Amino acid sequence: MVDTDIQKINTLLGRGTEDVFVKDDLLKKLSSGKQLRIKFGIDPTGPKIHIGRAAVLRKLKAFQDLGHQIVLIIGDFTAQIGDASDKSEKRPMLSKEQVNENFKAYKEQIGKILDISKVEFRYNSDWLATLSFAQICELAEVFTVQQMISRRNFKERIENGNEISLREFMYPLMQGYDSVMVEADVEIGGFDQLFNLKAGRIMQKHFGKEEQNVLTVQMLEGTDGRKMSTSWGNVITITDEPNDMFGHIMSVKDELIPKYFLLATDVVTSEIEIITKAITDGANPMIYKKQLAKEIVALYHGADAAQNAYEHFENTFSKGEIPELADMEVAGETQLVEICLHHGLVSSKGEFARLIESKSIEHMDSEKIVDDKNAIAQSGTYRIGKKRFIKIKVI
Amino acid sequence: MVDTDIQKINTLLGRGTEDVFVKDDLLKKLSSGKQLRIKFGIDPTGPKIHIGRAAVLRKLKAFQDLGHQIVLIIGDFTAQIGDASDKSEKRPMLSKEQVNENFKAYKEQIGKILDISKVEFRYNSDWLATLSFAQICELAEVFTVQQMISRRNFKERIENGNEISLREFMYPLMQGYDSVMVEADVEIGGFDQLFNLKAGRIMQKHFGKEEQNVLTVQMLEGTDGRKMSTSWGNVITITDEPNDMFGHIMSVKDELIPKYFLLATDVVTSEIEIITKAITDGANPMIYKKQLAKEIVALYHGADAAQNAYEHFENTFSKGEIPELADMEVAGETQLVEICLHHGLVSSKGEFARLIESKSIEHMDSEKIVDDKNAIAQSGTYRIGKKRFIKIKVI
Repeated sequence: MVDTDIQKINTLLGRGTEDVFVKDDLLKKLSSGKQLRIKFGIDPTGPKIHIGRAAVLRKLKAFQDLGHQIVLIIGDFTAQIGDASDKSEKRPMLSKEQVNENFKAYKEQIGKILDISKVEFRYNSDWLATLSFAQICELAEVFTVQQMISRRNFKERIENGNEISLREFMYPLMQGYDSVMVEADVEIGGFDQLFNLKAGRIMQKHFGKEEQNVLTVQMLEGTDGRKMSTSWGNVITITDEPNDMFGHIMSVKDELIPKYFLLATDVVTSEIEIITKAITDGANPMIYKKQLAKEIVALYHGADAAQNAYEHFENTFSKGEIPELADMEVAGETQLVEICLHHGLVSSKGEFARLIESKSIEHMDSEKIVDDKNAIAQSGTYRIGKKRFIKIKVI
Repeated sequence: MVDTDIQKINTLLGRGTEDVFVKDDLLKKLSSGKQLRIKFGIDPTGPKIHIGRAAVLRKLKAFQDLGHQIVLIIGDFTAQIGDASDKSEKRPMLSKEQVNENFKAYKEQIGKILDISKVEFRYNSDWLATLSFAQICELAEVFTVQQMISRRNFKERIENGNEISLREFMYPLMQGYDSVMVEADVEIGGFDQLFNLKAGRIMQKHFGKEEQNVLTVQMLEGTDGRKMSTSWGNVITITDEPNDMFGHIMSVKDELIPKYFLLATDVVTSEIEIITKAITDGANPMIYKKQLAKEIVALYHGADAAQNAYEHFENTFSKGEIPELADMEVAGETQLVEICLHHGLVSSKGEFARLIESKSIEHMDSEKIVDDKNAIAQSGTYRIGKKRFIKIKVI
C-alpha cells in the first residue's frame, strides 16, 4: 500500500531538495496511489558514504517509507567509465575488481539507511556491456554537442581551459539509458546530478517511454564549510565510530548547524527554525552542536551509543584527559595551523600564533613544544592549549 | 619493386595537394624503397564519383604506380553512422542494403582509375561492429572535447547556431581506429578530411603504433565555381557518357580551366602554366576548354571516344542541331535564368534579359517562346539563342 498523505509528500518534495522537475507532475504521481519506481544510481567508486551523500539516501528512504519501489542501479559498468559530475579532473578507470570490492562495502552502508530487503538491485553492465557501436551511436544521436557543453560543469571546465575527455560525454548517455531499461518513474540524485537525471527524460522520450521526474538534494558542506573531500579531512562518514563521529560533528562550523540539522537529521523543520533563531540571537552554539551530534550518532549507532559518545566528549573536555582520537589523515606537507583551523581547534591564525608564543602547543608523542607557527604537521597526537587534542597521520 | 624516382615523388606530394603532414617524414618514407600501406576510406553514400573526388583517387593511383600497397577501407560501418566533414547538416542513417548497393557501383567506378586487382579491400564493420561500449570509451578517452570542437567544420556550425549531433563526434574515432587496424603508413583524403586523417595519427600513437602521414587533395569546384553538388547540377561524374561529359566540361567557368587541368588531367604542369598565361593574355578560352574536355573524356572513355565527342560538339554547335542532351536535374522551383547562368549558357542576367526581349528563348517541347525573364524552369528542352540548348528535368 502506498501512503498518499499530503503532508509527508510535501516534506518529501520540499525538505532539503535542490531541484524538483517537473514538480506538479511528480506531486500528482505521488498522490495517485500508484507505486512508483524510484531510481537511484550508485557509483561505487568511494568506499565510504559521507553524511552528505547519506542525505540523498535518506531522501530515498522517505520514498521507501511511503511504499514506493526503490531501484538501485549498481553502476558496475559506468564506474569503469567515469562521470564528470563532481570533479574538475578526469577520473581514472577502475578495474572490475575494484568496482566489486567497493560495492560490497557500499551495500553494507546502504543497509544502515534503507530497508535493503525491499530494494530492487540492478547492474547496469547487464545492458550497457551488450550494446554495439551502432546502438551507442543511436544513443549519441539523441543528444547534441551543444546540450552537452551547456552543462554547467563542462562549461566551467572549457572556460577554465581544462580538458574534457570525450569519454565523459558518454556518461549521461549511459545513465539516461539506465532509466529506459528500468522504467523509472522518478530518479533522484545529488545537487550536481540534474543534467544526468534530465538525460534520462530525453532518452526515455526517444525510446517512447514516459519521462521520469527528477529530484536533487542540496549539497551538505564539510565541517569547515568547504566541499566535503577526504583530502581535506572535513568529511563525516556514516561508518565513523560513535566517539569519532561525535567529535567530528563538534568541529562543524557554527553557521552550518541549521543545514546539518536539515539534511542529516530527522529533526522537524519547525524545531530547526527555533534553533536557528536562538543561535542568531546569541545563544551558545555548542549546546545545539551537541544536540546535532547526538541526533546524527543516534541515527547510525542508536540512542545509547549517542548518549555514551556525548558523555565521553563531556568527560574528555572537562577533565583534560587525552581522548581516544581518530586519525586525521593529511597528505604530504601541511602546516599544523591549517589542520587546526579546518578542524575548529583554533578560531584564527592569530589564536594559533598566541598559543605558540605561550608554549601551549605540544607534540605529545615526542614531548616537544612546537615553537614555529609555520610548523609542518607530523604524525602523532598534538595538544593544542589545555583541552584540545588532535591525532594526525601524515600519508 | 618500389619506384623512388625523386621527380615522381615530388609531383606526387606537390601537384594539387592541400596539406601534406608530416612532409619531410613522408618524403623520407617514399624514398626509402619500402613498400608503404596507403589507406583511403571509401564512404559509399553517393552512387556516383565526380571528377573532384576522382582527383583523390587519381592521387592514390600515383602511389599505386610507384609500387605502394593501396588499402581501401569500405566504410560499410561508418556509412551507417555518418560523417560531418562535407556538410553542414546531419546525415541520415543508411541501411545496410543501401550501403552495399552503393558500394557495388563505387567499385566499378574505382576500377576506371585504380588497378583493382592490386588493391587490398577491407570492410571496417569487421572490427568496428565488434567493439564493446568499454572499448569505445577507451577510444573516446583518446580525444578531448576541445580537440573535437576546434575542428573547423564543427566550430562553424557551433558559431552559426547549428546543432551537432554527439553521434558525429564518433566518426573520427572510427576512422582513426581503422588506421590502427590496417596499419596505415599514409592516409589520403579530400581537402576537408585533415581532421579525420590526423585522428588516425592520434589513435595509432595511443595504441603504440607508428603514426601515419597524411595527404589531402585540393577541392575542385563545380562547373559554376561553387562547391560540386548534385542539387546544383554543377557536377561532372566519371560515368557521364562521352558527349555529355564533353558538354558539361564546356560549361566550366573560364577561370577554372587551369585548376581543372591540374586536378582532373595528367597534362604536365609546365603546359598548364602556358595555358594559364595564354588565357590571361587574352586568348580565346574556348580553345583550351575543348582541349580540357578532350583530355578528361579520354581518361575515362579513351582517345577515340574523346575525338568523337569533340566532333559531335563542333557539329552540333556549328549546324545548330539540337544535341542529345543529358537531363540537368533541378529541384523544385528554380528560375530558368539561374540554371542558364550556372551552366554557362548565358554570361549574365543582362544577356538573358536581352534574349527574352528578342524572343530568342524557347521551350521546345511546348513550342512556346519564354517571355518572362523570371520564368520558372519547366521540364523539357530549352533553346537559348540560336545554338545553345539545355534539357531540364524538374525533380
